[in-house]
Amino acid sequence: MSKRPNFNHLAIAVADIDAALVFYRDALGLQVERIEEVEREAVKVAFLPLGDGSHDIEIIQPTRDDTGVAKWLAKHGPGMHHVCIQVNDIQAALARLAAHGVELINPQPAQRSDGTRYAFIHPKSAFGVLIELYEKPAPHQD
Amino acid sequence: MSKRPNFNHLAIAVADIDAALVFYRDALGLQVERIEEVEREAVKVAFLPLGDGSHDIEIIQPTRDDTGVAKWLAKHGPGMHHVCIQVNDIQAALARLAAHGVELINPQPAQRSDGTRYAFIHPKSAFGVLIELYEKPAPHQD
Repeated sequence: MSKRPNFNHLAIAVADIDAALVFYRDALGLQVERIEEVEREAVKVAFLPLGDGSHDIEIIQPTRDDTGVAKWLAKHGPGMHHVCIQVNDIQAALARLAAHGVELINPQPAQRSDGTRYAFIHPKSAFGVLIELYEKPAPHQD
Repeated sequence: MSKRPNFNHLAIAVADIDAALVFYRDALGLQVERIEEVEREAVKVAFLPLGDGSHDIEIIQPTRDDTGVAKWLAKHGPGMHHVCIQVNDIQAALARLAAHGVELINPQPAQRSDGTRYAFIHPKSAFGVLIELYEKPAPHQD
């Protein structure tokens, strides 16, 4: 497949999702598809779909003080935390990044319960941007 | 039209586009559609299309020291500078934002040479995120 990498989501870290939604939902007019607590990552996430719904803005609120997001938020204040780019072959993408000497937070992809494989690239190597890569599982063949 | 707002671009501010492309193009594997100098805004911009090409990552390098982007870069270092959301009716969007007491950098939309109308929302009102709104001109009727 030669499909281009695609935008998947932009994550915005805040201290209080409900306060943030007064802006993002009520004033800016974005829809909230759902709010979910992801215990394993110690965040509450509001999913705000954009366009055809294949990508979104995710507003994340840390639910514990000792996580990366919580520490980032304490240091920087609210703002754009990471951008997620969906690729076709995350293994190949990580191999190419490593070959270029890029610092990877996850040299091997981790996997979510829905089968999505993901890995973070260190912002040091990405000009200050924390980039998450996604590879979505192939759709079922009927 | 009830079409959802859509992601248009994420702008990443850097001091040196060529150095940034060693990561974004060569290591991450994104395509560079073109690099353009926008004199009016005193920036050089590399356009890196994503997905179907209707949206992109834009790497921006200030070409003068006295602009907002240049000052932001001097203060923060490289990183995600703003996100642009495309809406159907920018006038209506700005009216709703103003009615919610949101601070607007452009209370009235400005216009680019291609007919795109745009306005920036102050990050103070948007939980630390500089948000640009776009309204694209309607396609020609044949």
